[in-house]
Amino acid sequence: MDKLRKSVYEANMVLVRERLVTLTWGNVSGIDRTTGTVVIKPSGVPYEELAPEHMVAVELDGRRIDGGLKPSSDTPTHVALYKAFPEIGGICHTHSPYATAFAQACREIPCFGTTHADHFRGAVPLARGLTPDEVQEAYEANTGKVIIERFGKLNPSEVPGVLCAHHGPFTWGRTPAQAVENSIALEVIAQMALQTVNLEPHSVPVPQHIQDAHFLRKHGPEATYGQGLE
Amino acid sequence: MDKLRKSVYEANMVLVRERLVTLTWGNVSGIDRTTGTVVIKPSGVPYEELAPEHMVAVELDGRRIDGGLKPSSDTPTHVALYKAFPEIGGICHTHSPYATAFAQACREIPCFGTTHADHFRGAVPLARGLTPDEVQEAYEANTGKVIIERFGKLNPSEVPGVLCAHHGPFTWGRTPAQAVENSIALEVIAQMALQTVNLEPHSVPVPQHIQDAHFLRKHGPEATYGQGLE
Amino acid sequence: MDKLRKSVYEANMVLVRERLVTLTWGNVSGIDRTTGTVVIKPSGVPYEELAPEHMVAVELDGRRIDGGLKPSSDTPTHVALYKAFPEIGGICHTHSPYATAFAQACREIPCFGTTHADHFRGAVPLARGLTPDEVQEAYEANTGKVIIERFGKLNPSEVPGVLCAHHGPFTWGRTPAQAVENSIALEVIAQMALQTVNLEPHSVPVPQHIQDAHFLRKHGPEATYGQGLE
Amino acid sequence: MDKLRKSVYEANMVLVRERLVTLTWGNVSGIDRTTGTVVIKPSGVPYEELAPEHMVAVELDGRRIDGGLKPSSDTPTHVALYKAFPEIGGICHTHSPYATAFAQACREIPCFGTTHADHFRGAVPLARGLTPDEVQEAYEANTGKVIIERFGKLNPSEVPGVLCAHHGPFTWGRTPAQAVENSIALEVIAQMALQTVNLEPHSVPVPQHIQDAHFLRKHGPEATYGQGLE
Repeated sequence: MDKLRKSVYEANMVLVRERLVTLTWGNVSGIDRTTGTVVIKPSGVPYEELAPEHMVAVELDGRRIDGGLKPSSDTPTHVALYKAFPEIGGICHTHSPYATAFAQACREIPCFGTTHADHFRGAVPLARGLTPDEVQEAYEANTGKVIIERFGKLNPSEVPGVLCAHHGPFTWGRTPAQAVENSIALEVIAQMALQTVNLEPHSVPVPQHIQDAHFLRKHGPEATYGQGLE
Repeated sequence: MDKLRKSVYEANMVLVRERLVTLTWGNVSGIDRTTGTVVIKPSGVPYEELAPEHMVAVELDGRRIDGGLKPSSDTPTHVALYKAFPEIGGICHTHSPYATAFAQACREIPCFGTTHADHFRGAVPLARGLTPDEVQEAYEANTGKVIIERFGKLNPSEVPGVLCAHHGPFTWGRTPAQAVENSIALEVIAQMALQTVNLEPHSVPVPQHIQDAHFLRKHGPEATYGQGLE
Repeated sequence: MDKLRKSVYEANMVLVRERLVTLTWGNVSGIDRTTGTVVIKPSGVPYEELAPEHMVAVELDGRRIDGGLKPSSDTPTHVALYKAFPEIGGICHTHSPYATAFAQACREIPCFGTTHADHFRGAVPLARGLTPDEVQEAYEANTGKVIIERFGKLNPSEVPGVLCAHHGPFTWGRTPAQAVENSIALEVIAQMALQTVNLEPHSVPVPQHIQDAHFLRKHGPEATYGQGLE
Repeated sequence: MDKLRKSVYEANMVLVRERLVTLTWGNVSGIDRTTGTVVIKPSGVPYEELAPEHMVAVELDGRRIDGGLKPSSDTPTHVALYKAFPEIGGICHTHSPYATAFAQACREIPCFGTTHADHFRGAVPLARGLTPDEVQEAYEANTGKVIIERFGKLNPSEVPGVLCAHHGPFTWGRTPAQAVENSIALEVIAQMALQTVNLEPHSVPVPQHIQDAHFLRKHGPEATYGQGLE
């Protein structure tokens, strides 16, 4: 578990280095699938004071394992996603400004180019806002619920993130580091998309055959990108 | 008072580190409520030359206590706010570009998302411009007056900042450091809000039940965020 | 002259530190009014290789004084301004993106707020583009000519800069350092102005009595800002 | 070839330093015209792990010369351009946000000002998207094909870059370093152009006589910019 704590800590610090978080608005978690233990940033601790041993371990039912700090207030959202998406190993939540602007405008991000297609297959989806009852009952857990509801038949390995209406983005990946990478990519994708519609309000998504070519160049059994198996 | 000087100095330097000030456009103050002494940045001194001992102490009636540097030209605004809002302990003024753009456009910032709701309950209000007589009589003191007039029944602990029309933002908090934190939050909130209306000019505020849930998660007796009392 | 070379060199390096120049797009000069010697950045030398002794000295008629590097290609513009505006001691030229966008859109920058009023009295004016004959005859010298033509009765001490249509800004001041300060201020003013019209296309300038109050707080015999004479 | 490897490595690292690449989205190559060897960044290797010896050498027919890392997946595009444009010695590809926004909006960048005219003669052209057949057959090689098709009678020395529809920019130059310089210039030119149309949607290109004066001041036998032959 020390290894998971270290990787979760390091992924949180990459968020800071890449300027994706302001104050304490962001958190990264990771899961050990063999034990079902989730490790996550503590709530409201300034990043400059964080150390690997501050990372909080919780069970998949949300209970804390040890007597340390309180976990991030968003923990129930993370846990819900780990339960629904067994293929993911890390989750990242930020309030990065461009992705959050799409979330606040209640607009998904169309796939306007190959930068997007390299990371997300199709639009970045938008999960609906919560009803008063859902907020009242369990705000954070139900945030997970509406994400899962929105995904339906979408494949979380092909669409590694979502915008929550009025709120901001969650991304994920096989590891905490990859979840953060997808947050970095999403923020630039959102910036480019905003500038694209600024230039041409009626911009259309990139043709499907180009989306597919780019996505499959980086993902799946036919991937040719990177230094993988040859 | 050395402790207050140090905390005011450090809060001023955070402004620089977070890139919220250009040249000398910004100032932070703090108050010792037991003695009524206000400590504030000196006027027009470059940040790279500032030291804690340069911070200027003034009475709540605006008179300087010791024979040091001249206090910030905005001192009468700070003093007016300390007198009207007894619950605050620090004030921060910047010309940060996004918040200032809303002030220049004479528009309040609607609560478009949970980032906003986490820090400000409801819209960031706009105080009106001063009349020729008010400018002539006492520009800085009357800037305080129109802020107080605008607040009316608003609670300065729940709405820790304001935009002055044609001018820029003032924020406050329990301490100088918290006042600066609210300036940092306000600038990102303003950036997100501008991008939100760029994407969707008819964007509406986040539903009230979500605003309340987020604000109360971080503030008040039921707050669950951070490492506070459990 | 070593002192002037040093101050011109340092002012050029502030441009880089403040991220107002890309590649080699910018130059600062200064003048010794007792001898009429102008010192300016050499043409096309990368900033990281610059040293004080590279600064080039020219006469007010444009002739080089010593056998060093070639002066900036914009030297004839600087010289024309020094001759027309005897009150200035330093000039700065950049292609900073927001100010250049106004120049490219052939729009002056209205005084939308007190940040602007603190530095420029009234709008930042726009000088017209050159005719084919003017380009053919002496592009750089005639750039100075159209700036001077545009100024007419404007006071260069109160309006310390201009936008050249299709090109970018020139600013000036009593010293090279102050010319650069005005370029820094102008870029932020331009950013705020663009964001202001984005938010509200029909934004109007700040009322004249507020413009005057702010300008005179920082400039002229009644100035109260800074640590000046008391 | 060690010298070429070093210059290609250094040009890749300038991209990072100038913040033109996010994650691994970018690559620079160079060619030794005497041997026809192209040296290029390896595919998908994080920039912080790159060293000069990782740069991959390939023949102009795309075959790898030695047994090292896999070359950038964009190698066939680079090779096609080196074959078609014998005057170029370096190529740079990025997904820099402003230039990419124009590519995604399928709009060329008009020459709105002298910053643009100093680097590109006329608009930055847009190459069309690939057909399904072209994608299927050879995506990267055909990306080179449509660039060459778009250039027709354009002179690649006068127009040192292109936008690929839905994708992003490629730039080139006499050397890898100059190719990167043109990417830096292109990104700022794109930012200014977006801001220019934001301010004035009907902005027109700068008059031809000014475009010519600026381009020829920096390029060709009559160039007066820089410290070249006098």
